[in-house]
Amino acid sequence: MSEVYAVRRARLRDRCSAAGSAAALVSRPANVRYLAGGAPPGAVLLLGPDEDALLCPRAPVDGAAGGRLDEQLRLTVLPAPNGDPAVAAAGILVPSAVESLAVEEHHLTVARHRAIGSVAPRLRLADLGCAVEQQRIVKGEEEIACLRIAAEIADQALGELLESILVGRTERHLALELERRLVDHGADGPAFPTNVATGPNSGRYGHRPSDRRVEEGDFLSVSLGAEYRGYRCLIGRTFVIGTSPADWQIELYELVFAAQRAGREGLVPGAGYRDVDRAARQPLESAGYAEGLSPRTGHGVGLEIDEDPQLAPAAMGKLDACVPVTVGPGVHLPGRGGVRIDDTLVVRPEADGGPELLTITTKELLAL
Amino acid sequence: MSEVYAVRRARLRDRCSAAGSAAALVSRPANVRYLAGGAPPGAVLLLGPDEDALLCPRAPVDGAAGGRLDEQLRLTVLPAPNGDPAVAAAGILVPSAVESLAVEEHHLTVARHRAIGSVAPRLRLADLGCAVEQQRIVKGEEEIACLRIAAEIADQALGELLESILVGRTERHLALELERRLVDHGADGPAFPTNVATGPNSGRYGHRPSDRRVEEGDFLSVSLGAEYRGYRCLIGRTFVIGTSPADWQIELYELVFAAQRAGREGLVPGAGYRDVDRAARQPLESAGYAEGLSPRTGHGVGLEIDEDPQLAPAAMGKLDACVPVTVGPGVHLPGRGGVRIDDTLVVRPEADGGPELLTITTKELLAL
Repeated sequence: MSEVYAVRRARLRDRCSAAGSAAALVSRPANVRYLAGGAPPGAVLLLGPDEDALLCPRAPVDGAAGGRLDEQLRLTVLPAPNGDPAVAAAGILVPSAVESLAVEEHHLTVARHRAIGSVAPRLRLADLGCAVEQQRIVKGEEEIACLRIAAEIADQALGELLESILVGRTERHLALELERRLVDHGADGPAFPTNVATGPNSGRYGHRPSDRRVEEGDFLSVSLGAEYRGYRCLIGRTFVIGTSPADWQIELYELVFAAQRAGREGLVPGAGYRDVDRAARQPLESAGYAEGLSPRTGHGVGLEIDEDPQLAPAAMGKLDACVPVTVGPGVHLPGRGGVRIDDTLVVRPEADGGPELLTITTKELLAL
Repeated sequence: MSEVYAVRRARLRDRCSAAGSAAALVSRPANVRYLAGGAPPGAVLLLGPDEDALLCPRAPVDGAAGGRLDEQLRLTVLPAPNGDPAVAAAGILVPSAVESLAVEEHHLTVARHRAIGSVAPRLRLADLGCAVEQQRIVKGEEEIACLRIAAEIADQALGELLESILVGRTERHLALELERRLVDHGADGPAFPTNVATGPNSGRYGHRPSDRRVEEGDFLSVSLGAEYRGYRCLIGRTFVIGTSPADWQIELYELVFAAQRAGREGLVPGAGYRDVDRAARQPLESAGYAEGLSPRTGHGVGLEIDEDPQLAPAAMGKLDACVPVTVGPGVHLPGRGGVRIDDTLVVRPEADGGPELLTITTKELLAL
């Protein structure tokens, strides 16, 4: 596994030197983690022409104040306890022949950028842009294995909830219980704040769990995910509370289900991001729900719960194999509630059986 | 309450115009919340010479796409659904007579700063610095009232845990249970990730809950806090598991207790930040624990769990009345465990009875 990090860094280094920078400073936490494994909060990665260093905001616990070589990761780990590790990283380059340093301008603040400029005034600061984020889109099988376990954990937590009594319990409590179950099943934690919405709140984009209690006849929509070894997945389901759903509930559910299936079926290598969005969006628009749809129907997942690609009407780009994405359209009727169905899948060629569904909880409309 | 926001903005506006900027752009989330009340994630506040606007990253739920005046807050709320609200804010100033805009360079990224410059090339971009953070240090009584409730909730959650059976349960589970109890008692959520450390982990700075189970004879250290209406407090306690603590445990506990009391007693208006730190640190250093002490013994709390002032050896500045701070020294003996005792208090003049203790759970050494 530790080989992987060196290979990723070598790829980024090639890209940087092709763009004219002999060194790069990676500060965005998920990017640091991608290139250097688990790093302490606030650590930054300096990609040098020959060797790389991880600069940590406080002295390592083992007390090696002068730095140490992590042979597994092929990284020098250096403490920078008395200031900004990014500034300390630039300081390392001052006595070197490096003339240009690419930084993550979309993450670094103006103040930090200026401090780097002061400590290394002769260094030309270039923009690394989203080079690491782009590199992260297509996952390795070891990353997909983590996502698969994360999805399994989320499925288990959700499955247990469905067996418990729901009527009378608040959205907040159900969300907390789901998070506890995620950890019970081995998650490092929830992948994002668990969302539970009942009755008129169900299916609403951006809803946060409230003190509303589950009632007979409600739609109940749930969105949760597990983090496992840094990788985050997502599952969303909608259920109905009581013995039999109302006609409008069955109708709405079938519509969203069909839209979500169309989106899933669009996940083939080479498909445009916007085409997948269109496949999931179009059935909802045709049924008269154009207004109020969320601005996208899915997105990439990985070390962050929300990363590229974006499955949205104006998104540019095409899916590759081994890209994990969510597909989760939803409809919300103000005052009545709604439906949201969300899966995490990995794009696979048809020859390999097509998209790999990671979140396998049933999508039948269950009456609980 | 809504008056309060207008008053805070007026104060900041005075400060900005004294520094030569007729307008300011506040982007740091806690600062936006301080000046404009609860704002959606990603919203930014434009402080104009005459009127203020809150720019939100997506259209408001009520669908008023052209913006609306929030009369309570005395703010215009504007959607900026198609891009960065900070850039949209700068765009508003283009046709105006405003020549200089102060921005939060310690929060704004280089990329966003550049985008603002492109949309408003004639606007001079100045640095607002930490003006809002400074303004936030001294709290109003309405803010202290929220902190008082947050502390009460944390005390209740902790009190209930102490009545339950602890031996055999994991650190992770105890932490999750505390968080559930916080919400049970009315918290919006935990103020920060709850920390539980047992046996050799107890009292260790930076420990994260693990799968270690509580055993007889362990020290158990717990650190938790509630968020209530945005305000966050902190309480830390250490207990011993079993019928009677060992001599070394009693000794270490008494030492940390004395250090923490010395820190608390140092909380008077006019006391230097470093003097409070020194009062709490010195007893531990004298007892031979200089190495391994955490770099500070306390810090401010409010809309963030960790804000100014810093109670640390090199901190400059003096305490004012109505500043809530934590005082929480700790000692950790590698392989054995340790003690950490942490309170949230509000600095008050002696005439008003001295420091107001918000977290009132006993600091006697309890054997559980």
